[in-house]
Amino acid sequence: MELWFSEHQTPDLSLGLRLRRTLHREHTRFQELLVVDSEAFGRVLCLDGTIQVTERDEFFYHEMLVHLPLMAHPDPRRVLVIGGGDGGSLREICRHEVVEAAVQVEIDPAVMAASRAYLPTLAVGFDDPRVDVRVADGIAFVREHREAFDVIICDSTDPVGPAQGLFEADFYRSCRTALRPGGILAVQSESPLVNADVVRRVALGMNAAFGQSHLALGPMPTYPSGLWSYTLATAAGDPRRPLPSRPLPERLRYYTRDIHAASFLLPPFVEEILAPATEP
Amino acid sequence: MELWFSEHQTPDLSLGLRLRRTLHREHTRFQELLVVDSEAFGRVLCLDGTIQVTERDEFFYHEMLVHLPLMAHPDPRRVLVIGGGDGGSLREICRHEVVEAAVQVEIDPAVMAASRAYLPTLAVGFDDPRVDVRVADGIAFVREHREAFDVIICDSTDPVGPAQGLFEADFYRSCRTALRPGGILAVQSESPLVNADVVRRVALGMNAAFGQSHLALGPMPTYPSGLWSYTLATAAGDPRRPLPSRPLPERLRYYTRDIHAASFLLPPFVEEILAPATEP
Repeated sequence: MELWFSEHQTPDLSLGLRLRRTLHREHTRFQELLVVDSEAFGRVLCLDGTIQVTERDEFFYHEMLVHLPLMAHPDPRRVLVIGGGDGGSLREICRHEVVEAAVQVEIDPAVMAASRAYLPTLAVGFDDPRVDVRVADGIAFVREHREAFDVIICDSTDPVGPAQGLFEADFYRSCRTALRPGGILAVQSESPLVNADVVRRVALGMNAAFGQSHLALGPMPTYPSGLWSYTLATAAGDPRRPLPSRPLPERLRYYTRDIHAASFLLPPFVEEILAPATEP
Repeated sequence: MELWFSEHQTPDLSLGLRLRRTLHREHTRFQELLVVDSEAFGRVLCLDGTIQVTERDEFFYHEMLVHLPLMAHPDPRRVLVIGGGDGGSLREICRHEVVEAAVQVEIDPAVMAASRAYLPTLAVGFDDPRVDVRVADGIAFVREHREAFDVIICDSTDPVGPAQGLFEADFYRSCRTALRPGGILAVQSESPLVNADVVRRVALGMNAAFGQSHLALGPMPTYPSGLWSYTLATAAGDPRRPLPSRPLPERLRYYTRDIHAASFLLPPFVEEILAPATEP
């Protein structure tokens, strides 16, 4: 007898994982939360039927989302994570010795509790003494801060429901105000194949707030299409090259200095998505 | 009522595509052939239940498999394709004006007939006057040739059944003999996440035949894990940089000169797969 989990990534596309067992299921205040143990990707955390992280491939996503902005910033002492309730982004941030404070603002405490209980390789991020976890709405939190962070990382769910406002120009403007001079905003910006509209909307919104933005690409097997994007913006400098001044964290599995620079080299089909709307 | 095609990419992992309709189904002399029309990826050709090409994402695979070796070779006049019965590799090869002859050796004529009937954007590759299509066993064909080709492209199915011999050192040695001086062999070498054993076996086999080999990575949404590899080897030169002397084909969607060089920059988890067996 076989047990499978199927994620309908779009109405026309599904990913199926054969399961060892179901570990946890709960209706939180905000969403349906499911933790399963899969043969192919280890433990998997799903929210409203959408895979958020798997033990086996989360390194692609967290290494790119975190090390791109942190290695591009000359001195990232104070880092803010919006979302990221599984702890994976905090784990990667705390591998940088230069970081003095990492604040996480997650709206749903049940996600953090589930990660602590079932995803110890991710939840390890909560245990660093530099970490300060707040249960709050990220949009409101950012709006209340001025020149407070060197890097803001938006580790959000897809742009439906509570995360929708995290994909809008207003939020990016608040982020710019909450960043110190030279600060960098990095957001997960979905798949250029499945969510070209989101990729474009994020770029336009970040351009409006920062004057420019830069898209990076990387693999992410359990996300729709397997090709994922990250968008970075800063009011000063260019985040497309890692700074040579600081050592990389050890034992990374995907990110390298070379891959940092290479991830910003875009194929023509992605350049087309980002092309100004006025061009033919 | 919904019609779905499910590919079991491994016993533990499946990809599901919602279908408009089934177009063709046939037991050929070698394999079960199925052509379906999917909502997410357009028309799809499957062999023995495994997706070979889809109209929407085949450009990633064919552009990388063909333009990596052709842009790395100073003067690729004679090109051989082993497999590639859909015509997509021939199509990309014929976009290079310098090519004088493109020979394709495909073992199963039913694949070519199905592509002509249902995949016109791929089968267009058969219509170029420089193309010579042979129905034959690729391994035997290569063995019978000496210094006959500038580039050999192995556009094979997975290493099970008839394609198994295309992943072995003996075949790579025959390819080296069939190549002219300075010639390049390029093979599709599966997913480093799902088929690490194959990636490693191909590298060891090509190292044995050529003294070295070089792995490149690229996205391929409908193949297992979405991250695909291509391995190149040559007895002379280094294929990791495209040569600046020739113009690129126009209207490419994935491949660029920058992406050529970037695709050979490997993440640590892939370096580990390729590390010499004697290291700890």
